[in-house]
Amino acid sequence: MREVAVIGIGQTKIDEHWDSSLRVLAGDAALAAIHDAGVSGVEAVFVGNMMSGSANHQQHLGAYIADWIGLRYTEAVRVEAACSSGAATFRSAIMAVASGEVDSALAIGVEKMTDSPGAEITAELATAADADWEGEIGISFVALNALVMQRYMYEYQWKHDDFANFSINAHANAVHNPNARFRKAISFSTYQKSPMICEPISVMDASPMGDGAAALVIVPAEMARRINRPVIRVAGSGAATDALAVHDRRDPLWLSAAEKSAKQAYQQAGIGPEQINFFEVHDAFTIMATLSLEACGFAERGQGVRLALENEITPTGRIPIATMGGLKGRGHPVGATGMYQLAETVIQLRGEAGPTQIENARFGMTQNIGGSGSNIITHILQRES
Amino acid sequence: MREVAVIGIGQTKIDEHWDSSLRVLAGDAALAAIHDAGVSGVEAVFVGNMMSGSANHQQHLGAYIADWIGLRYTEAVRVEAACSSGAATFRSAIMAVASGEVDSALAIGVEKMTDSPGAEITAELATAADADWEGEIGISFVALNALVMQRYMYEYQWKHDDFANFSINAHANAVHNPNARFRKAISFSTYQKSPMICEPISVMDASPMGDGAAALVIVPAEMARRINRPVIRVAGSGAATDALAVHDRRDPLWLSAAEKSAKQAYQQAGIGPEQINFFEVHDAFTIMATLSLEACGFAERGQGVRLALENEITPTGRIPIATMGGLKGRGHPVGATGMYQLAETVIQLRGEAGPTQIENARFGMTQNIGGSGSNIITHILQRES
Repeated sequence: MREVAVIGIGQTKIDEHWDSSLRVLAGDAALAAIHDAGVSGVEAVFVGNMMSGSANHQQHLGAYIADWIGLRYTEAVRVEAACSSGAATFRSAIMAVASGEVDSALAIGVEKMTDSPGAEITAELATAADADWEGEIGISFVALNALVMQRYMYEYQWKHDDFANFSINAHANAVHNPNARFRKAISFSTYQKSPMICEPISVMDASPMGDGAAALVIVPAEMARRINRPVIRVAGSGAATDALAVHDRRDPLWLSAAEKSAKQAYQQAGIGPEQINFFEVHDAFTIMATLSLEACGFAERGQGVRLALENEITPTGRIPIATMGGLKGRGHPVGATGMYQLAETVIQLRGEAGPTQIENARFGMTQNIGGSGSNIITHILQRES
Repeated sequence: MREVAVIGIGQTKIDEHWDSSLRVLAGDAALAAIHDAGVSGVEAVFVGNMMSGSANHQQHLGAYIADWIGLRYTEAVRVEAACSSGAATFRSAIMAVASGEVDSALAIGVEKMTDSPGAEITAELATAADADWEGEIGISFVALNALVMQRYMYEYQWKHDDFANFSINAHANAVHNPNARFRKAISFSTYQKSPMICEPISVMDASPMGDGAAALVIVPAEMARRINRPVIRVAGSGAATDALAVHDRRDPLWLSAAEKSAKQAYQQAGIGPEQINFFEVHDAFTIMATLSLEACGFAERGQGVRLALENEITPTGRIPIATMGGLKGRGHPVGATGMYQLAETVIQLRGEAGPTQIENARFGMTQNIGGSGSNIITHILQRES
């Protein structure tokens, strides 16, 4: 398999974009990525999106976006894996380039959620759960995650307050990210006073939705090495699924798909968790950040939350997470999130992250979670020299 | 790029499957393909589907189906390109195996359309068109194709009756396909008397929707060659897009994406149209079969319909099409159609097609069309020795 690298990134701010359509958002990110890469086009376009069919009455986003950005006739498809659509799309794009079938690919993640009433979006998000067993009883994603968090707190004896730093760190970092939806630091008291959505998940445990798009340009690594800028290689890529319904897992407190996909990525990269300089986690809920840290080998089972409590997740900690705001501060336009994580990782590895720059960052890891842990995709990017 | 081959296929009958859910249909086809391949599992699952998010309130089909067929933990995603989702999914799967990232892949196409009222399906199909320019004015896919057919008849001086043999051939061939939705031959008089849907498209010009699933198992060709049965190699694969909105094309009577993707497939296979023994066209409407034959080099511009008139499209003709019923007779469960075309091509190349077997079939071509020609994917399969 030939090595691939990222040579361009683009993002829009995550916001309520009332004056931009889906194609405008996707196009802005895509054209920024193409410009950043310094290329005139690509040979294939991959679009990650979850809910445009119902939220925007537009499917077929491959052709829709390729044409808009001036790449009419270029091969283009959409990839969907619920909230992990972004990373799934990136993985499809890297396999396309790695196979030799194309020599360059554009991976775009886009989602436009705020046009629809919240109740519709809640129903739409529920299509990522098991329609026959979970959707059928009307359970929402917040409620599914609340069940998991409740059980976790009971099993390992944690209090709600113990999760505060996940949210505080994310918001503190988002302040410095011009593309983040909420650029406002929060205090421990804000976390404590924030209203419950579904116990024990409060507003400050949950990531906000939003409209946004992010994009990356992928080429063979040998091509990236001929350009006079840091080479950001895809060192590892792994993907795995789990039972779609939470109740159907052997252990609902263990993200088997995170563990499997991370192992695959570590193995390809030839490193372990101790070499990872920062980790863009999928903190859709604080409990997901916790479980992800454990499954990827950064903490013992039941102890992920301790990393937050002991301030090891900040930019100067042992394993910095959500370094540009995470899903909590940056926002979570579902199908675009994985692509934002990857774009931010490139920014960190290029040393262009500003006040939240991780010193001497060489290996950055991303993990994008679909459903309540049923589809998890892990990538390790590496800065060469 | 390493060569790949198909070693297993599976299909369900296309029908109104009131007693089978989406996962049951997909599972039946997938397990049949795995059984046919003689393997115990695969390393990656790719699911092609267009409208399950709204029609079945279930997205995230990768994890949904992988778990159902006993492949929990296996990497799995969905690929969408409207009505070309099937072939787009196959292409993603072959790139995954070609890249070396996985050594086997299962490509499934599934669609369950008949649970929903027809008006909803019409609206859902319209999400494959341009929401801002076509969906906005409420035009349906039949109406879009009717505009194209009208113009074609005017421009090249054809009558409605001249298209009859596309429908007659498809239905005659479907009689022998146990998985076809309509196994009933029709006469010229049936075609003539069939009611207009949107002039000049009558019921007999349009393919019927349906519920169904088809699946293929893909492995490196060298692995296929170690099994004691005909090796069906993927000799060529091409994909291209065009303007999403019909009015935005330079020439609405020319399928540029068909031409481009076919050229790419011919080039990879090292052959031209004259070496193709049969062609599974995307005859969603008779006009699409016509345009596809022209763009792929089987007829001059404006003359595709002549191949039907002169009976050159039957199993003993110069370029047999829809050899197992095509979309017209077999049925068109949109996201599954491309996979049915490929499965039927394998059956033909194995020499197992029964009364509609193409003699000495060595190269079979498939073409799957998304939107009104805005995403077209062409494959050439080859029987070795």
